[in-house]
Amino acid sequence: MKPMDSEVLREQGHIMVDFIADYYKNLEDSPQDFPVLSQVQPGYLRDMLPDSAPDHPEPLKELLDDVSKKIIPGLTHWQSPSYFAYYASSTSVAGFLGEMLSAGLSVVGFTWLTSPAATELEVIVLDWLAKLLQLPDNFLSTGNGGGVIQGTGCEAVLVVVLAARDRIMKKVGKTSLSQLVVYASDQTHSSFRKACLIGGIHEENIRLLKTDSSTNYGMPPKSVEEAISSDLAEGFIPFFICATVGTTSSAAVDPLVPLGKIAKNYGIWMHVDAAYAGNACICPEFRKYIDGVENADSININAHKWLFANQTCSPLWVKVGTLINALKTNPEYLEYKVSKRNEVVNYKDWQISLSRRFRSLKLWMVLRLYGAENLRNFIRDHVNLARHFEDYVAQDAHFEVVTTRYFSLVCFRLVPVDGDEDKCNERNRELLATVNSTGQIFISHTVLSGKFILRFAVGAPLTEEKHVTEAWRIIQKHASKFIHKKKY
Amino acid sequence: MKPMDSEVLREQGHIMVDFIADYYKNLEDSPQDFPVLSQVQPGYLRDMLPDSAPDHPEPLKELLDDVSKKIIPGLTHWQSPSYFAYYASSTSVAGFLGEMLSAGLSVVGFTWLTSPAATELEVIVLDWLAKLLQLPDNFLSTGNGGGVIQGTGCEAVLVVVLAARDRIMKKVGKTSLSQLVVYASDQTHSSFRKACLIGGIHEENIRLLKTDSSTNYGMPPKSVEEAISSDLAEGFIPFFICATVGTTSSAAVDPLVPLGKIAKNYGIWMHVDAAYAGNACICPEFRKYIDGVENADSININAHKWLFANQTCSPLWVKVGTLINALKTNPEYLEYKVSKRNEVVNYKDWQISLSRRFRSLKLWMVLRLYGAENLRNFIRDHVNLARHFEDYVAQDAHFEVVTTRYFSLVCFRLVPVDGDEDKCNERNRELLATVNSTGQIFISHTVLSGKFILRFAVGAPLTEEKHVTEAWRIIQKHASKFIHKKKY
Repeated sequence: MKPMDSEVLREQGHIMVDFIADYYKNLEDSPQDFPVLSQVQPGYLRDMLPDSAPDHPEPLKELLDDVSKKIIPGLTHWQSPSYFAYYASSTSVAGFLGEMLSAGLSVVGFTWLTSPAATELEVIVLDWLAKLLQLPDNFLSTGNGGGVIQGTGCEAVLVVVLAARDRIMKKVGKTSLSQLVVYASDQTHSSFRKACLIGGIHEENIRLLKTDSSTNYGMPPKSVEEAISSDLAEGFIPFFICATVGTTSSAAVDPLVPLGKIAKNYGIWMHVDAAYAGNACICPEFRKYIDGVENADSININAHKWLFANQTCSPLWVKVGTLINALKTNPEYLEYKVSKRNEVVNYKDWQISLSRRFRSLKLWMVLRLYGAENLRNFIRDHVNLARHFEDYVAQDAHFEVVTTRYFSLVCFRLVPVDGDEDKCNERNRELLATVNSTGQIFISHTVLSGKFILRFAVGAPLTEEKHVTEAWRIIQKHASKFIHKKKY
Repeated sequence: MKPMDSEVLREQGHIMVDFIADYYKNLEDSPQDFPVLSQVQPGYLRDMLPDSAPDHPEPLKELLDDVSKKIIPGLTHWQSPSYFAYYASSTSVAGFLGEMLSAGLSVVGFTWLTSPAATELEVIVLDWLAKLLQLPDNFLSTGNGGGVIQGTGCEAVLVVVLAARDRIMKKVGKTSLSQLVVYASDQTHSSFRKACLIGGIHEENIRLLKTDSSTNYGMPPKSVEEAISSDLAEGFIPFFICATVGTTSSAAVDPLVPLGKIAKNYGIWMHVDAAYAGNACICPEFRKYIDGVENADSININAHKWLFANQTCSPLWVKVGTLINALKTNPEYLEYKVSKRNEVVNYKDWQISLSRRFRSLKLWMVLRLYGAENLRNFIRDHVNLARHFEDYVAQDAHFEVVTTRYFSLVCFRLVPVDGDEDKCNERNRELLATVNSTGQIFISHTVLSGKFILRFAVGAPLTEEKHVTEAWRIIQKHASKFIHKKKY
């Protein structure tokens, strides 16, 4: 037995392709066999598997049987057409093929030298994507900036917080760490707070500014400006604003134009977290939501969320060389003449990890195998499906749409009866648990201004109108038991 | 056109399997077509690709032609049988299949709920692997500890530095950050320093203790103890020791037994970075190198380095709940009753990122499709091949083996003539460049005590004795031009 044999790979690879194609076929044709939200109980798997690794090889067939019988029941099916929770993590045929090819070639592109194609394709493809997003030239490699594929938005925000921290510390001295202050809204992704704490920013210096329905949960620039002034007056050092386009909670949009001006005025790094909604900005009609990005220092989207690029693929663009100062390493064993040349990018200095997979391959494949127009249409289809769902909600007096919908997320709830908000929250919570326990659909929730809100997010690659209609039918059906009680 | 269609996936997936199987076949059969170290020049790819993404879809065939003609020449072939640089990043048929399946199912396991199988399989498989490594019980989930798959050793060391930092800061107060001190050897991976800087540890508080040939570049416990005493006397706060088993430079081994005792005495977190050599410890004859791990707080191996698990797969084990305090987040939109239950692991709180791929699947497949005995034998084969190479070197008076070989890395060089070390370094540097420019093999280098050293690391999954013999022939051939000049 050998770890690699091209003919074994061929034979078993074909078996695996059929296994995966069958999975997608069954996910569509026999939804009853695949509860979208897994219904297993904690600890279910331990009883089904042995206590230790086998000493001797087991056949692939046996393993795939175990996947079918033991693993698949424990999956929450993110690629199910009836998956409407959180935000989707959208795969696609092209994204899948790209992952396969990357796993097959299995190169490690930490420096240019260790696979020039891996680095150069990433530079080029991120320029392509920057152009689709109409990012300003100084985010492109041809404009002295450039992109890098991080694993996730969490990694992206961490590296820019670190770069901004080290930039300001160079000016003010490292003993000032405890005075550094950052700004974001209370809707900002939890990874921002985590990134700040990782970087040693004091928790009480993380200003998460209050939002409410008056701005549809977008960050009020006035609050930011006031907070900065007050912090400066008290001797704090403001250095970072994290603005979000499409928050995780309700797809709220922070106003980049005024925020960017504030950042520029005060010399503060502004990062744009557009993990979900940034993908939609390849469509001209959605591009307006990142107007103002020209005053940002960095912007990130998760192409595995809504650009069909399969996990993990989180492009981050920055202006000239800003990450390298904070993230550079120079071990002797990686030194090579060419690595020191200016025209060469060494991506190890743009991220946390040294090693990195050949992720640009799948992004390149997605862009080429679909083309920009189809990608825009995939996104528009999802937005239209969300609009469709929103219409259903709006037509039912027992429900309300809670926030203005910009993209493919609808925030809605059962309306309160006799103004009883507590009871209303409880009923919505109960409705959520009930519909998810059917296994027929999976939706998620959030809380906005104390209200328990249901979230219906369209983004899975198999979702069609019939799935949305059916989802609404299921929600209505299970809501009826509360509604018919009249008062609740 | 739709982003996902099971029959398109099936058809194109089969094409891709054949493409990848052919790649491996050709890599073995026609090595002359695949220079191991890519010979392209910086910027080569930009001229070959358009400036922007296509508006309309392009056929898969055209894309694969481009992969063959434009991408593959720009690859450094890490899976080539004649790849002997750095450490290998070993794939395998099972690892590749696992990546495919994970990309196919495409679930996101950030909390238990979002795919119970993804979390539970990771817990179980890391217990399996911990048992193969004979880790103490308190690193197992059944012993109140547990494992988590990080992307890389860099992420692993970062999360444990953060956990240790936050543990000590809780005691001493966060204003003491500037007094925190860490210890490692000057051979420690660059990611350790990077992790400390990310965490806000002051650069001058990173003690990289000197090593030399007297300990075969292992960290001298006496130096650590002296440094700690002296730091304590000066009011510093020692909180972290990073010990390495198998350094990146020369596969040196830090002595865990005495280091662990020191760590325990002073209440300091000890992390064991066994990224490369830890994999070998599944063989009883290599297990001794991690003796003493019982006094460590964490240990990490890179299963994508030498356990055939394909990038990225970096298991990290810790004792009870130690990571969660530093890395926990609690956004409302991820709250779910079950997630709060004690028996449930939410891996988002064990790592930097929220999102995570289903990586345990490939580790499970590697362990089952090969079985522990074959995996041990794959590793032993590599060690034997390295021994074989070492014998060649030892038999040639123009060369010398520079450090004691423990695993599958041989550190060697052309010997100096007339004691001229500078000239000797220059010649070795020249020999390295020459052999790598042939494209027939790829080896790398390091510097130890000022000496420029050649590194020959066996670990690629296709490597056999004939490739090692041929590599030595190539090295000897190109060395002869220096040797025949007699004095250099």
